[in-house]
Amino acid sequence: MRVAYLGPAGTFGEEAAIRFAPEAERLPFPSHAAVAAAVESGMADLGVVAIENSINGSVAETLDILIHETELRIQAELVLPIVHNLVVKPATNADMVKVIYSHPQALGQCRKFIERCFPKAQLEAALSTTEAVQLALRRDNDGAAIATARAAELYGAEVLARGIQDAANNVTRFLVLGHKTPPPTGRDRTSIAFTFAEDQPGALAGVLNEFAKHGVNCTKIESRPTREAFGEYVFLIDFEGHKDEPEMAALLEQVATHCATLKVFGSYPRWQ
Amino acid sequence: MRVAYLGPAGTFGEEAAIRFAPEAERLPFPSHAAVAAAVESGMADLGVVAIENSINGSVAETLDILIHETELRIQAELVLPIVHNLVVKPATNADMVKVIYSHPQALGQCRKFIERCFPKAQLEAALSTTEAVQLALRRDNDGAAIATARAAELYGAEVLARGIQDAANNVTRFLVLGHKTPPPTGRDRTSIAFTFAEDQPGALAGVLNEFAKHGVNCTKIESRPTREAFGEYVFLIDFEGHKDEPEMAALLEQVATHCATLKVFGSYPRWQ
Repeated sequence: MRVAYLGPAGTFGEEAAIRFAPEAERLPFPSHAAVAAAVESGMADLGVVAIENSINGSVAETLDILIHETELRIQAELVLPIVHNLVVKPATNADMVKVIYSHPQALGQCRKFIERCFPKAQLEAALSTTEAVQLALRRDNDGAAIATARAAELYGAEVLARGIQDAANNVTRFLVLGHKTPPPTGRDRTSIAFTFAEDQPGALAGVLNEFAKHGVNCTKIESRPTREAFGEYVFLIDFEGHKDEPEMAALLEQVATHCATLKVFGSYPRWQ
Repeated sequence: MRVAYLGPAGTFGEEAAIRFAPEAERLPFPSHAAVAAAVESGMADLGVVAIENSINGSVAETLDILIHETELRIQAELVLPIVHNLVVKPATNADMVKVIYSHPQALGQCRKFIERCFPKAQLEAALSTTEAVQLALRRDNDGAAIATARAAELYGAEVLARGIQDAANNVTRFLVLGHKTPPPTGRDRTSIAFTFAEDQPGALAGVLNEFAKHGVNCTKIESRPTREAFGEYVFLIDFEGHKDEPEMAALLEQVATHCATLKVFGSYPRWQ
């Protein structure tokens, strides 16, 4: 099996791919859109994409791929803790560090640690946490990177400090995209997107009432601007249940009567 | 009047501050949280923060500040087009460009332009579009930056190509935070956040039914993970109307009966 992910190796995307299918061949791609295209074209069997982080919110690129660009199905989800580490060239001590490299998002998620422990360090942006390790290694023992432990291992760097992220509960939810829908397990989640014909004050309430009538729990609701006009939205809902269960199929039919468009991204076992 | 914004000068945050109050003194701060703190502490009278981009979605940091960290009120909104430019040191021609600097988000928003016009260029991350201009200027006429026209002007660089963003309708919505709520104008928007006591399948439908009953249009709905547990959410709604109009005040009272917590971020004139 071949699993596509957002590379390069050593980033959290690879960690999710390893966690999902440890034995699979892993193929890094430069964007989430490329991951989806790799699966659609047969270059990979499955693709792992980030959908939501507890600190940063939804990954808009992935939502837009699901809404507009792909007919792939969500087959599984994973929720992984995001652990940032301070990574250095071997023989670098904390008091030697003058420059800290990372992706701006990782630098932002470790701001308190940096302010406390390295108040004078110069912060430098990198395109990924893995590139940050490479940039730090090019310096003469005065550079550090914020990156995964695996990136340190891959490039012969050392972890100087572990778990330096400001928020204790920093987790990312990943989706596995493929061509199939797994059968119901009794503990599933379904993800859908829908639009309304025009701006109707009661339209969204109408949809949510269908869920309420069936006693179905919506685990997430969100709106994304349509690509056509700012202020017009696609609505996204995750709910507990599987589209192939008879009651859920009936619910989805009733939801569809309220909507101009309705797309089911997939039904898949909930992460435990 | 002093207006705080997410700096440095030359970024879109400054553009929004200039647009909102051209004559005001402008104070750059390093994060949206710092902008809010500047206003709360009296260092600035108003603060401009980004809340939503048509390509990237909501700015989670700003949502979390409004939900958890500040009692400031939203006083106004602005919706500005995001125009990216290729900025170079004077006397640099397109065929000399080998390296392109920018914030990873700006690089991502100009991917098609770069692939078409500079397929061999090396991409380098910067902490802001303004820093990208400074990095490009340090090179010997083989560097470029993706940045605002104002950043080019501020640092003595030149715009080589204008409007290079992939999406034609790339706009960002900014909010102005302050201590007051402006009076109703008849064309206002109100932003609220609320939570439920526990996971109730019909709770959100109950809230939306109140809006539907009053014929009030929700212009945006969103959920953010609470900081306590992944899978528990704060819901955010924008709707048309002003909290000080009697019917809207009655609506908010009814909404409150469904919720464990309800916070009104403010009522403010809608951007035209």
